[in-house]
Order: sequence, then structure tokens, then C-alpha cells
Amino acid sequence: MSGPGTSEQEPSVQGDSPPGRRDEDAGEGTQSSHRMLGFSDALLSIIATVMILPVTHTEISPEQFDRSMQRLLATRIAVYLMTFLIVTGAWAAHTRLFQVVGKIDDTLALLNLACMMTITFLPYTFALMVTFPDVTLGIFLFCVCVITIGAVQALIVGYAFYFPHLLSPQIRCSAHRALCRRQVLRIILRGPVLCLLAAVFSLFFFPMSYLLMASVVFLPYVSKAASWCKDRLVGRTEPTAHRVEFFTLDLHEPLSKERVEAFSDGVYAIVATLLILDICADSIPDPKAVASDFGGSLLAALGARGPRFLAYFGSFATVGLLWFTHHSLFLHVRKATGAMGLLNALSLAFVGGLPLAYQQTSAFARQPRDELERVRLSCAIIFLASIFQVAIWTAALLREAETLRPAVRFGGPEHTFMLAKLALYPCTSLLAFAATCLLSRFSTFIFHLTQIAVPCGFLLLRLLLRLALAGLRGLQGLARPARPQRGPPGEAAASADVQSPLLPAPC
Amino acid sequence: MSGPGTSEQEPSVQGDSPPGRRDEDAGEGTQSSHRMLGFSDALLSIIATVMILPVTHTEISPEQFDRSMQRLLATRIAVYLMTFLIVTGAWAAHTRLFQVVGKIDDTLALLNLACMMTITFLPYTFALMVTFPDVTLGIFLFCVCVITIGAVQALIVGYAFYFPHLLSPQIRCSAHRALCRRQVLRIILRGPVLCLLAAVFSLFFFPMSYLLMASVVFLPYVSKAASWCKDRLVGRTEPTAHRVEFFTLDLHEPLSKERVEAFSDGVYAIVATLLILDICADSIPDPKAVASDFGGSLLAALGARGPRFLAYFGSFATVGLLWFTHHSLFLHVRKATGAMGLLNALSLAFVGGLPLAYQQTSAFARQPRDELERVRLSCAIIFLASIFQVAIWTAALLREAETLRPAVRFGGPEHTFMLAKLALYPCTSLLAFAATCLLSRFSTFIFHLTQIAVPCGFLLLRLLLRLALAGLRGLQGLARPARPQRGPPGEAAASADVQSPLLPAPC
Repeated sequence: MSGPGTSEQEPSVQGDSPPGRRDEDAGEGTQSSHRMLGFSDALLSIIATVMILPVTHTEISPEQFDRSMQRLLATRIAVYLMTFLIVTGAWAAHTRLFQVVGKIDDTLALLNLACMMTITFLPYTFALMVTFPDVTLGIFLFCVCVITIGAVQALIVGYAFYFPHLLSPQIRCSAHRALCRRQVLRIILRGPVLCLLAAVFSLFFFPMSYLLMASVVFLPYVSKAASWCKDRLVGRTEPTAHRVEFFTLDLHEPLSKERVEAFSDGVYAIVATLLILDICADSIPDPKAVASDFGGSLLAALGARGPRFLAYFGSFATVGLLWFTHHSLFLHVRKATGAMGLLNALSLAFVGGLPLAYQQTSAFARQPRDELERVRLSCAIIFLASIFQVAIWTAALLREAETLRPAVRFGGPEHTFMLAKLALYPCTSLLAFAATCLLSRFSTFIFHLTQIAVPCGFLLLRLLLRLALAGLRGLQGLARPARPQRGPPGEAAASADVQSPLLPAPC
Repeated sequence: MSGPGTSEQEPSVQGDSPPGRRDEDAGEGTQSSHRMLGFSDALLSIIATVMILPVTHTEISPEQFDRSMQRLLATRIAVYLMTFLIVTGAWAAHTRLFQVVGKIDDTLALLNLACMMTITFLPYTFALMVTFPDVTLGIFLFCVCVITIGAVQALIVGYAFYFPHLLSPQIRCSAHRALCRRQVLRIILRGPVLCLLAAVFSLFFFPMSYLLMASVVFLPYVSKAASWCKDRLVGRTEPTAHRVEFFTLDLHEPLSKERVEAFSDGVYAIVATLLILDICADSIPDPKAVASDFGGSLLAALGARGPRFLAYFGSFATVGLLWFTHHSLFLHVRKATGAMGLLNALSLAFVGGLPLAYQQTSAFARQPRDELERVRLSCAIIFLASIFQVAIWTAALLREAETLRPAVRFGGPEHTFMLAKLALYPCTSLLAFAATCLLSRFSTFIFHLTQIAVPCGFLLLRLLLRLALAGLRGLQGLARPARPQRGPPGEAAASADVQSPLLPAPC
């Protein structure tokens, strides 16, 4: 897709591909991988998020909301979260794989489709394993799925190294291509080999199987911690020159920022869609019911569903504004690290839980007794989704020279504004939660008020921030004893700035 | 997203945004619209496609498949197709709008979210109107939705013209900016004004309302035909210099190719997901049922669902390969015209019907009597989805100097291969359909054979094509009488090529 730089070259040719981008090198059959990767990101993000649907389809009636119901709901939420993180892990492996491959051809495109098909089977096999935890076949099928994914990825790597013009420039020009290939294959096949062992163990000793599968997740961090300890004890060894930099699963190694954005956009888009789907599915009144229950008045029939539409607008606004915050954040990110990617996945997992919050709050009219719990659940989900965005920001600040643009670094002109944008949802959801503790009778009102107030807050954020900062300066001026002016006003202003370095520049 | 051109500039910096792309101009607060447009494309494509779900959820049992059931199914399919085309129309209007706007800022991003929210309400209001065709409120709500969308878009246009640095370079540098704005607003508000009239008429005379709403779709083509007639009668008038080229809704005006690709990717991705969702939702056996019906054997329980998994793999392969064909086609497209966009929308509408085909073919084990009809329905859907891709190709060929890269134009080296790729699905689905007419008892076998044969066909396509062309040449050589060689072999070969200009160059 052409960025603003290329579109300025040919302003009179609307819709044309920029000439600098040669999609098809007819002589070699190679193509840009850009569109294929965007398609893969869309597919995987939707797969990960639609696994919330079994949770929302769990019919909860207040009379039956006993312990077994609570346990069922908690189990399904846990399965959703684990499935989301597993699919996100597969997506992350896919991004690392396609940092090795630079260009693609028809065969690689078809191999990628096979990879997608195997990854889409992960949620099903995982759900099967969870439903039948002590049946060999459940564990076996999940492990076979992981092994198949690894095999297809190894095939892709082998094909790319066999036709070196397909490799990324960094590896193609490397002098140690065979070593690179060995390292890449080792990391790709690590998970599948562990799952193969787990499948073998599932025939006679389940706990070992589960331990081996869990180690697929934790092994990279364990091995990194082990090498860190070794460095401390033995002394830092020189990193080998041919180490493939992005293929170490290190939390500090860069992720492809564009793919993180594309994956996140897919999650936000499908969540917004799931909200409207609930409306369309349930809220078209049946003509016979309208005739019998509402005397033929469609207006009355729709009015009875009023809370649903209110809940829809509020939930859509929430999803949209969380996307807007994510968008604002990543505008200022230069490079995404593995830690940021992990925190982003956790944030997206809770964004995926928003249809659950919508379903809860839209049931107000039917079950007014549960308002308090439903509002609290919604506040909790929104808080978790937004606080992990703040965590991404914090992780970026810890290495701000690498990861952030100068404008938003600590002390930069846009720093405070970005912090304000990110803090809006966590603060308001916490406030709403606290308010429901004090004024539990008005919990619905508080929730709807928050849902209306936050979009207005975003629109007026810059203005509100300036007012707040002006107020802060005024207070600081009052607190400080008045000093006589010794020099020209410019000097006084400069010295004032020196004295209050913590006050950011006005935005 | 960085294309291959920019990534070659900095091979050592993985994951970094290319320096040529300045997302944030901190002084003006302007941002690239790229990510926001990608998000909008994902959202709208998913919205359009999930409207197939009410159709797939129509429970059809063979005993009840009488006329009323057929009518219900046909109505729902028609509603799905119309909803898909309406949402695609709204998406097309959105693409035209953001060819006026070059860069965005925070306010425009928020306004775009409001635009998205109103567009997502279109399917619901349309379904309501169709369910209650003679109730004023139904028509009224749909028209209000369209008017609101128009109002938000007009607001976006007004805001962009108020801050000219946000406009696209073509318009910003134009000397007739006010005229441009008037023209853009006129086209944006045309549909909403017609719907306003329709809303007024809905109070006392329904047929006029429906006529006015239908005219929103046909008016651009009617007015284009009228101006064509006028040109023929009066004589061609010079196009005015300040005419905003892409804002005439002309079928030959360029669409943004990247946005067409993004929208299409969204549709393919959600369709693939809907397939796996059906599997996950229904195919996890209940532990109690496994214990009682299958004697505790999970393998037996899964085996009973075998046809579903077979149908899943076949359907996923179909969706994936249709995407692959679309991807191959658009690699060679330089510029997408309005006609290509319209045909693409029709192709995508039928791709969206594939979950219905899957649902039908996966029910084989339960209702073997209906196999024939189900196989035929699936063949028909696949044929329609793929034949419209051939139509896109044909529309492109009609203006090949503008729309296609040289390699695939008629007579180019890749022309025959592209045609073969595009023709594979239409031909095989037609063949399968014909085969079921002759061998109706083996319809299931034929269908599954086709589903396995086509992926293999794609993998071996180049080889098969070379064999076919070699066979053709051989036949041509046999048919032509032998001529004595008069000169050096090179001359003979050259004269042979001159004599057979229709044989394309070997691929």
C-alpha cells in the first residue's frame, strides 16, 4: 500500500500503484509479500477473537447463577483467554518467519494458505483437549496440529533458502546462510518437537504431556534467564556475527510494527462487528409478536429494546475509542519490541471480551437485579483492556531512544497529551467502578454517563489538558514566593523553565 | 505499511518504520490516513459478510422443505445480497471521500469512527425495513441512517476544506477549491437528499419511497447515460479543468486499488473464519453424549463427524484458492476502474455465500437424500464467485493499456497463465455440475474429488499449461503441411512465429 511519501510523487494519478513498487518481477515470478501478510493478519486476528462467541452464547439466567454456572463461565473465559494467546503466539511465529522471507512467489503463497489452514484448526483442537482433559486423543490431536504447523513453516523456510532471491536482503547477503537456516529451523521446530514428546507421553502419563506443552510457552524465557545468569557468572560472550537478530524470541528484539498494527486492527474490527451482530440477530421483532404483544406498533416493539441500542452505541464508542488510543500510540512508536507485542496481545485479549460486556449491559431491562454485577464486569473488562495499553506505553518509555519518536519521549511536547489519552479509559472505568460501590442504586446511570462522557472527553482532551496545565502552573506560581525581576523578561522566563523541569512544554 | 522499495533502503533495521514515511507532523498534528483506512476497510468488509449468518442459521429440514421454506430461504438470500451491495456502496463512497482527504488529524479520526458507527447500522435498518415493508417506521429508520451517514461525511469534507493542509495534494493545489468542495458535497448529499424525500413520502405513499430509494443506486448510471446521449446529440463539451476526476461515480474512473484489495482481503478472511466457527460451535462432542452414545470413545464420536471436517478442509481450500486467484489478478492490475470494483463486489458477495455451501455439504451424513441439491448449490455458488473474477479480468482487458501491466496484456508472456488461473474454478465447478446431472448417484464423490483436484491443479498449473500448449503446437504442426526449409533455421522459426500470431509466448 502506498504511503504518503510515494503518493506525493504522482499527485495526478489517483489509484495507481506507485512506480517504485514492482509487484511482479515477471522474469522470476516473485511478488511483494505485503498483501499476503495483511490477509494473514486479518485471518488470524479474526480467528483469535471469534472464540469469545461460545462465552457470550452461554445462557446465564439469574435463578441458575449458582456455583456450577459460575465455574462454567469462568472455565469458558479462561479457555477463551488461553486460545487467544495461543493463536497470537502462532501469529507471532508467522511474523518472525516472514522476516526471513523477503519476497514470495506462487508456491510460497499456496504454502502460506496451508499454514493458515493448520493454524485455524488450533482453537478447535485446544477446545477439544480442554473438554476431554484425560483422553489421549484430545492431547494427541492438539499436538498433531502444532507439529503440522511446524512442518509447513519448515517447508516454507526450506523453499526460501533453496531459492535465495526470495530471502530478505539481510539474510541473502549474509556470509553464513547455512548457519542462519539451521538457527531458524531450530527455533521453528522447537515447539513441535516438544509437542511430539507430549503426544508420546499422552499415551501413558498425562501430567508430563501438559508440562511439556506448557514448556513450549515458557522455554524461551527460561532459556533467556539461564543465559543471563551464565553471562553474569562466566562473563559476557561476544554475540556471534551471523546471529539472526530477530529470531531469538528475545523480548527486546524488534517485531514488525506494521504487522502488529494490522493484527490489532483485525481484532478491533471483528469486535465492533460482533456487537452489531448481536443487535441484528436478536433485535428484529417478529411481525407476529409485534401484532400480538404491541398492538401492531413497531415503535413500541423497538422501544422495548431501547436499552440494547443504548448499550450498542456505548459499546461501539468504547471499541472505537480504544482503537483510536491504540492508533495514536503507535503513530509515535518507531519500533515495536517483543515485550510491547506481548502486552499488546494481552490488551487485545480483553478488547475481545467487550462483546461479553455488551451482552451483560444490554440485559438490564430483562434482569434489573443484576445491574450492579454487570456494570462492574463491564468496568473491569474496559479497565483491563486499557491498562495494558498504558503498559505498552511504559514498556516503550523504558527504551524510549529506540522505540519512540522524539516528540513523545519524556519531556517532549506531545508526551503529556499521549499520557492523557492513554489514561482516560483506565481512570474513568476505575472511577465508575468506585462510584458503583458508593452509589450502587445508580449504577446503570453512572455507566451510561461514563459512556457518554468519555467520547466528549476525547474530543475536548487538548482543551482540558491545557486548562489543567494552566491551573497547575497557577498553583505552582502561588506556592512559590514572588522573586523580584533581576533581568530582561526573557531571562526570567528561562530561569522559570529551568526551575520547573518537570512541567512539560504546553501542548 | 512499507513496500519492498522502502525496505531495501534499510536492510539492517528490522521492524522500523521507513524514514520516508513521517506519520506524525508534530507541528500540525497531521497523520497518515493509511492505518485508519485499513481499519475502516476491515470493519466494513466484515460487516457486509457476516450478514450471511442469518441465512446459514435458517434451519432447513428436508421434511419441511416446502414452498414456504423455499421462499423464506430465497428471501433471506436476496436480503443478504442486497445488504452486501448496500454496505459495499457505502464503502465505495468512503473510498471516494478519502481520496479528497489526504492527511488526517485526531478530529478526523474521531469523525471517521462516527461514520463507521452509522454505516454499521445500515444492515439492521435494512433488515427491519424488509421485515416490515409497509410500516412507515421501517422506511423512516433506514432513510434516517442514510441521512446521518451523509451528514457525517459532509462534516468530514467541510472540516478538511477548512484546514486545507489536510486535503489531498491534487485538490489543495487546485485553483478552484470552492468549486471542488461544492461538487464533492453535491455528490455526497445526493443519496441522503433522495432518502429524505423517501422518508417524507413514507408517511403517505410507500411505492414512491421505494422508487426514490432505488433511484439512489441507479441515478449515477442514468445521469451518465443521459450525458452520453447529450454528447452524441449536441456534441462533446470540453471537460472542465477543475472537475474532480475521481468524484464522478463514472464506471471508468479509477478506484483506489489498495483499498479494493484491503476490502476483498477482509471478506475472504471473515468467510474463512465463519467456516471454522461452524466447526468449533457444533463439533465439540458433549462428554455425556460421548459416554452414552459412543461408549466413551472420543475417536468414534469424532469419526461420526468426519464429513464435517472433510467439508471444512475442502471449503477452506476453496476460499483460500479464490483469494489466491484474486491476489494473482490484482498483482498485475495497475489501476482499478469503477466497473472492476462493481464486478469485484459481486464476486465477493458470492464468496460470502460460501459458508452456506459449506453448511449444505457438511450435512451429507445427516440427510443423504439431499446430496444432489446440496452439491449443485455449492457448485453454483463457487461458479458465480469465480466467474465474476473472470469478468473483472475481461473488464480490465477492455482498457488494458490503463489497467494492466504489460506482462499480462493480450499477447504478453503471462497472459495465458493468468487466464488459466482464473478459468480453473469456473470450469471445474461447471464440470462438476454437469457430472452430477449424468452420474447423480456419485454426486458427493464427484464434489469431494473436485475439491481435492483443484488445489493440485493450482500447484501444477504451469506444468499443465506447458504440456497443453506443447500439445497445441504439436497438433498445429501436424495440421499444417510440411514446407521445405528455404533458409537458415532462424528464419524458418521467425516465419513460423509470424504465421501463428495467436499462439502466446511459452510461459
